Parts: sequence; structure tokens; C-alpha cells
Amino acid sequence: MFRDKIKVLDCTIRDGGLINNHKFDLKFVRAVYKALSEAGVDYMEIGYKNSKKLFSPKDYGAWKFCEDDDIKKVTEGIKSNTKISVMVDVDRVDIEDIKPRKNSPVAMVRVASYVKDIDKAIHLVNHFADKGYETTVNIMAISRALDNELTECFQQLEKECKAEVIYIVDSYGALYQETTEFLIKKAQSIIKSKEIGIHAHNNQQLAFGNTIEAIIHNANFVDATVYGLGRAAGNCPLELLLGFLKNPKYDIRPVLDLISKEFIPLRQNIEWGYIIPYAITGMLDEHPRAAIGLRSSEKKEDYREFWDSLVGEDTE
Amino acid sequence: MFRDKIKVLDCTIRDGGLINNHKFDLKFVRAVYKALSEAGVDYMEIGYKNSKKLFSPKDYGAWKFCEDDDIKKVTEGIKSNTKISVMVDVDRVDIEDIKPRKNSPVAMVRVASYVKDIDKAIHLVNHFADKGYETTVNIMAISRALDNELTECFQQLEKECKAEVIYIVDSYGALYQETTEFLIKKAQSIIKSKEIGIHAHNNQQLAFGNTIEAIIHNANFVDATVYGLGRAAGNCPLELLLGFLKNPKYDIRPVLDLISKEFIPLRQNIEWGYIIPYAITGMLDEHPRAAIGLRSSEKKEDYREFWDSLVGEDTE
Repeated sequence: MFRDKIKVLDCTIRDGGLINNHKFDLKFVRAVYKALSEAGVDYMEIGYKNSKKLFSPKDYGAWKFCEDDDIKKVTEGIKSNTKISVMVDVDRVDIEDIKPRKNSPVAMVRVASYVKDIDKAIHLVNHFADKGYETTVNIMAISRALDNELTECFQQLEKECKAEVIYIVDSYGALYQETTEFLIKKAQSIIKSKEIGIHAHNNQQLAFGNTIEAIIHNANFVDATVYGLGRAAGNCPLELLLGFLKNPKYDIRPVLDLISKEFIPLRQNIEWGYIIPYAITGMLDEHPRAAIGLRSSEKKEDYREFWDSLVGEDTE
Repeated sequence: MFRDKIKVLDCTIRDGGLINNHKFDLKFVRAVYKALSEAGVDYMEIGYKNSKKLFSPKDYGAWKFCEDDDIKKVTEGIKSNTKISVMVDVDRVDIEDIKPRKNSPVAMVRVASYVKDIDKAIHLVNHFADKGYETTVNIMAISRALDNELTECFQQLEKECKAEVIYIVDSYGALYQETTEFLIKKAQSIIKSKEIGIHAHNNQQLAFGNTIEAIIHNANFVDATVYGLGRAAGNCPLELLLGFLKNPKYDIRPVLDLISKEFIPLRQNIEWGYIIPYAITGMLDEHPRAAIGLRSSEKKEDYREFWDSLVGEDTE
């Protein structure tokens, strides 16, 4: 699949940081940046831009806050055309922390939002666009969005929002290809002036398949992470995506090397990937919260009991 | 996806046996049979029917030969509607080993064949059909088949072959959804009197996605294995497939229990699943042979070098 407009965004450090409170050390983050740069990946999302008034730096690593100076320590001395992205959550950012683009090592700001918070997200993203950044809105938990509300959300984004890209985010890893196709086509039918993106989770081993499905239906911004790193089941593996895209600007080899040297050892210390409780929350279209809890309990392998605990409630 | 005609065939013991020379002990095989029976899975493929003149029972476990008496030890005392299947490879079977259906615990015989061997496969499968078995032909390495030869193969199967089902087998885990769709539709355009099946490998985390794709395009026989067990990258995970199919006859819970109790411990001793060298052979549409070799060498994690070793050859 060669299409020049396709842009790959690696969010290994940002999404992976949700596992370890963003405590990746500088050497590791530089190794990722160097490999992505050599591989020709378009964007690297390095973390969240959270307010230190809301979260204490004692509790979190640098990539919860993404200070410009910390970012520069990652990028300095490494030849690169890979742009830096940061993510902002509605209600968790101090907008004054974001300097004008011309004074910042950051090129792109992505605002993550539920459908219900879309007014706030548009306000934020327009502010960042006015400061000179490339911007996106990432609509989380889209598998739970009601169709009429999603229609209105897309209409607002098309009319009121300065972001260049609107992402479909399968937060729960619940989508199958048919629903992915439906959502991408629905977005495109309303949002005609922007690109559509996909961020898939791998609960049911469908992150890569759904990303391909989105690409087939003309989504041009695609998220991935090295070796699928990410909270719970993780994400679309970057190495598979680069193997699929036939664009000669990408080179898979630095990513293979990075996995050998950094990610195989890392996997011994932190857990992500295809693990049955995450598959179950994906099938049931649930937040992985309960599964994450289970994995740090003595019942971590009691899958049938976990299934029954999720499906057994009366919900009339 | 509820469609009454869909039949699920579990080949955990058969395909998994390729990892350990078919040396699963009776207790384990009975646990699988019991769980599949409780889950309502339609078929359980228990192994190969290989000739003892060609392979020594000293070197292989019982499921390389599938003697009727060994199968009966698995099934006895367990209430079940799950039918037993065995696989036959062209040139490796002594057809006299296969008793008439009425004297056998086996319900289905599947003949695995490359396109080039299709005449032999048809001869075999017609013989087994005449003995009273349900039969299928499984076309291996289909990602390497030349289109004109595949056309002829499908035409022969439609005209000359008594099998009820023809399977597309993605031996190398190389297919993406678009090619899966193409092959399923091509098969259906020629083979009008039989069902089409899919057997997918998981090298690129697409076994489940490709199986869904085949189901969408009306393939009605689908292979899976518990927890994706199988040689190299393994297969479409049964638990994901049952979660996707909305047919009320299936119950995922016995399979979840089986994974907890038998497959999590097993995974400590034998290796399968998403492992980068298998992903690489999938991307490059190669047999996993070289990757299996790499995994038992000291260079098991040297992925970049492995990639270069496969793509570096002159092939003019």
C-alpha cells in the first residue's frame, strides 16, 4: 500500500508511559527517537502536556509534562526529520505552558477528548493552532459513542475546529473491521476539509488489521508503537505497519534493531500485549480498568471468573 | 456475526503438535476435548494420520498417527457433540490405515496439499469420501500460488473432487485482508458446489482479522486454536473467534478456563505467538523455517541481521 499522503505517528513513549507513569529514562527515549528518525517515521509523540498544578513531578516521570528542555535533551545531536508531537487531555492542561510554536521543539499538539467534551477540545485545539502548531483532535472511546451524538460532534469539528486531522480512537480495542470501515466513512462523509486518522488498540489482536482497514478507506494518519507497546493490550505494532506500507521513505531495519536491544529487555519488566483479560474487556467493549486491576492481583490468571464478573451484572 | 452455517474447527492439538513432535499427553488432550465439547465447537482436529512406515513412533507422539484406540482414550466418558477430524498429507499416508467411517471414531478427514499436488490430493480425498468420511482439501501456501495455476486447481476441485469444503491456507502468515478477500471471492467464483474455509497464521497478527474478512465474504468453515497455539506464530485464537461469532451455540467460558489451567503453564515450556522473526517471514511471504532455526540459535533476538539475511540475496 503506497500512498504518499499517509503519515505515520509513533506514540510509543506517550502511550507506553501510561504503564509506568511516564518514567522512561533519557537513554531509552533517545534510542527510540534515533531509530524512528532513521526509519523515516513522520511524527514521534513523546508524552503528555499535563499541568504541574494538577500532577506532582514527584509521582510522574518527565513525559507526563514534556518540558521543552527535556525534549531538547532527547533530540539534540540526532539527525532527524521526525517531528515531535505532544498530547493534551481536556481539563488537564495549563494552556500557558504551551509556548508559541516558533519557540518550541514541538511541532504538533494532539487533543484527546470524549465526544461529550468536544466543545472544550475545540476551544483548546484552536488555541494551539493559533500559536502555530499542527493540531489534531483524537476522539476517544468511539466504540461507545451514540450515532446521533457522533454526527453532531463531527459536524462541529468540520465547522468550528482548526485541527488538520480528526482521529478515530478505539480506546477499548472493541472495533472489528466492519465498524472501523463504518466510522471512517461516516467521519469522511461529514468532515470534508480535514484528514482522518486511526488509533487502534490491540485487545483482540485487531489493532493492525483495523489500521489496514482504515488505510484502505483513505485514513491518512495512522498511529503505531514500537513492538505494540502501550497500556494494557497495547497498540498497532510499528514494525508491522512499516512492513505493510510500501512507501520507500520508511526503513524497518532501525526499528527491528531497537526492538532487539531495548524492547525485548523492557518486556521482562513491564507487561503489555495479548493477555486474556484485556481481550475480554475488548470483546465486551469495556475500559481495561478492571483487567489492569486483575493483572496486579492474585487472580491474574482466573479468566473465566473475570468474564463472569463482567457479564453477570443486571443492567436493566 | 451470526450465521448458522458457520462451523468452527479447532486444530489446537494437530497444529500445536508441529512444535513438540505431537507429544501432548493424554490428560492435556482430554482437557482440550472436554473444553471444546462444552464450548460447542463443531470439530476438533486431533492430529495427523501418517504412515508408521515413514515415521517411527519412537520419534513422535501419538498424534502423528492418530490410532483409533488412542482417539477413543481421549473421547471416552466425555459428553460431546464435537466431531473428530484428522489431517492427511499427500504422500505421507497409508490409505489402508483409514478404516471405513462406520468403524472409526473419526468423522472428518482433511487432506493438506500444495497446488502442485492437487491431483494426488483429489485421489486421496475421493477415497476417504468413498469410505464415508466428511472431507476437505486444504490448499497450503496459497500466498505463493500463481493465479493461472490456482484457477486450474479450483476448476479441478469443482469438477473432480468429492470434498465438501475447500480451504484457503495462509501457511506463511503473509496475507492481508485485501488478498484474503480476493482469494475467497476467486474460490467462490469457480467452486460453486462446496463450502470455502480459511486457515490463517498469525505471523503479522492478522490471523483473526483475516478470518473475520473471510467470514464477511461468506467463508463458512473457520479454523482456530486455543490461545493461538501452533507452530511458529500460531493460528487464529479460538477465544477471539468465539467472542466475535454471536451464535448462541458457542460458550467461550470453558475455553477461558482451559487457557488459565493448561495453556498459561504450557507457554512457559514451548514457544509460539507474535515473535519478530516470524513476523519478518510473514512480511516477506517465506516459510517460517529460517525463523524457527533462528529461535533455537544464539542469535534468536538479532532481528535486523535476520531481516538482512532474507532480503539480501540476489535472485535475478
